[in-house]
Amino acid sequence: MIIPTYDDVLAAHARIKPHVHQTPVLTSTFFNDLTGAELFFKCENFQKAGVFKARGASNAVFGLDDAQAARGVATHSSGNHGLSLSYAAGRRGIRAQVVMPRTAPEAKKAAVRGYGGEVVECEPSTSSREAVFAEVVAKSGADFIHPYNDPRVIAGQATCSRELIEQTGGLDAVVAPIGGGGMVSGTCLTLSNIAPDTQIFAAEPKQADDAYRSFKAGHIIADDAPVTVADGLKVPLKDLTWHFVSNHVTDILLAEEQEIIDAMYLIWQRLKIVAEPSSAVPLATILKNKDIFAGKRVGIIITGGNVDLGSLPWMKT
Amino acid sequence: MIIPTYDDVLAAHARIKPHVHQTPVLTSTFFNDLTGAELFFKCENFQKAGVFKARGASNAVFGLDDAQAARGVATHSSGNHGLSLSYAAGRRGIRAQVVMPRTAPEAKKAAVRGYGGEVVECEPSTSSREAVFAEVVAKSGADFIHPYNDPRVIAGQATCSRELIEQTGGLDAVVAPIGGGGMVSGTCLTLSNIAPDTQIFAAEPKQADDAYRSFKAGHIIADDAPVTVADGLKVPLKDLTWHFVSNHVTDILLAEEQEIIDAMYLIWQRLKIVAEPSSAVPLATILKNKDIFAGKRVGIIITGGNVDLGSLPWMKT
Repeated sequence: MIIPTYDDVLAAHARIKPHVHQTPVLTSTFFNDLTGAELFFKCENFQKAGVFKARGASNAVFGLDDAQAARGVATHSSGNHGLSLSYAAGRRGIRAQVVMPRTAPEAKKAAVRGYGGEVVECEPSTSSREAVFAEVVAKSGADFIHPYNDPRVIAGQATCSRELIEQTGGLDAVVAPIGGGGMVSGTCLTLSNIAPDTQIFAAEPKQADDAYRSFKAGHIIADDAPVTVADGLKVPLKDLTWHFVSNHVTDILLAEEQEIIDAMYLIWQRLKIVAEPSSAVPLATILKNKDIFAGKRVGIIITGGNVDLGSLPWMKT
Repeated sequence: MIIPTYDDVLAAHARIKPHVHQTPVLTSTFFNDLTGAELFFKCENFQKAGVFKARGASNAVFGLDDAQAARGVATHSSGNHGLSLSYAAGRRGIRAQVVMPRTAPEAKKAAVRGYGGEVVECEPSTSSREAVFAEVVAKSGADFIHPYNDPRVIAGQATCSRELIEQTGGLDAVVAPIGGGGMVSGTCLTLSNIAPDTQIFAAEPKQADDAYRSFKAGHIIADDAPVTVADGLKVPLKDLTWHFVSNHVTDILLAEEQEIIDAMYLIWQRLKIVAEPSSAVPLATILKNKDIFAGKRVGIIITGGNVDLGSLPWMKT
């Protein structure tokens, strides 16, 4: 296990700057009044590929030597990481192969292709996915970029909270959603180095509370097929992200499904931004734990904005 | 008819600065590739009250002398102007009376009250609205702030394109939606003074094309009950806005309903912002008139973001 350092974050930031946005930080009188805290929303929904993962993917892709770059990169994440890796590879002009079930929605395949990625179809089973992915790597020599359990990816995600601290001039706390723990690990890596007094809260759906249970138990516990509207947060912690979560996170806070949907609606209605359900989990946890945050300057990571606009969660009956 | 001057714009800008946002300008590689132009989206959906009209309303309200301020302001616009006037009056600590049909959606009444305005109900007819409004003004001495045919309002709206020119360093063209013509008149007022070579296009729904027909005929023609998804654009030009439109607008471009909905969807999907249908009319007209804009630096006014999130136009069958 290679643990990235803050020097890796600085190198990542210099490397990815031409390829990602310094996203804006929004504030809102309405939300400050509602929560009693001073909130700073870091808008990674405005990031390239619509999600913070463009940072980690860009760091991994642009850090490859020319020989490896010529063989390309590969992943079997069909969500935001697949998009981000396709974006970064396209930007460097190299191949990104994304293994996806042939039953995946056409819109997802089109999105990967739209960013220049190649969709490699497998059967909708874990065994087929693993077999097809192994074949892709064996044949092409592509470098496997894990969506979060990779030091290059974590160092890339860590650039987000570096900007947030610079843009706000300092915070009492940062709240980020947690799935596999890539964003939270990057936040831990940065804040433990440049803002060690800033508290770090991870926000998780109650219905996918594996990180919460892991944190309380002191070792990784994986969920068995969690179901949540925050579909970016279903994946489990891995050794590298567990390292950061177990050492640096102040606490993990949970939100119910309806609370996540209500918070998402409020964000759209009042901030006028398109944010995905995962992005609403931090606000949902702040609204039910006002005592923790009252009077504090609190950063919230709006992780991404890739949603199906034809099927919004508050419209489902 | 009092025609506001650019000095009035400068005074307005100084007056309203503490009360409104300098909204950001977004750019997008995707939209530049799609249109062949270089687009700059001025995001008034992030404005106070969610709409550019907070500028004009704030200028009117904060320009009142103390005696008039003590009697408050009134309007019978239950849409964005009613919200904006309530916001500005609340900010100054004076009364804003908004006459609305008792049958108006509760959400609209709640929004006005949420910004501190007083809802005065009338019957859902023009005669009742006019009678109730006259009574409100007679009783309270409130100052009637017209939503657009008012020099104070136009001078306020004109601050938007002043910021846009400063933020972009200059443009070849600006495209703004046209309803009553308040935003377009403000744009004309500013650009004719500080950027006279910048073309000014007004974008209008084909199904509410009174401004287009007026522009071509050379005199004001009012629509009879137009029906369009861009419900902020149904109102007719008046003498003051006609003055600016007829003297300074380069051309008026039309968009069909489905083109407006498609452009709105694209804005949400790619810019990750919540923008109301009226805001999408400029992009819709650019997409169908690419030859006019190709190779040019073009500003687009995203006028507001107040939409019913529970009923989005691409979801209607």
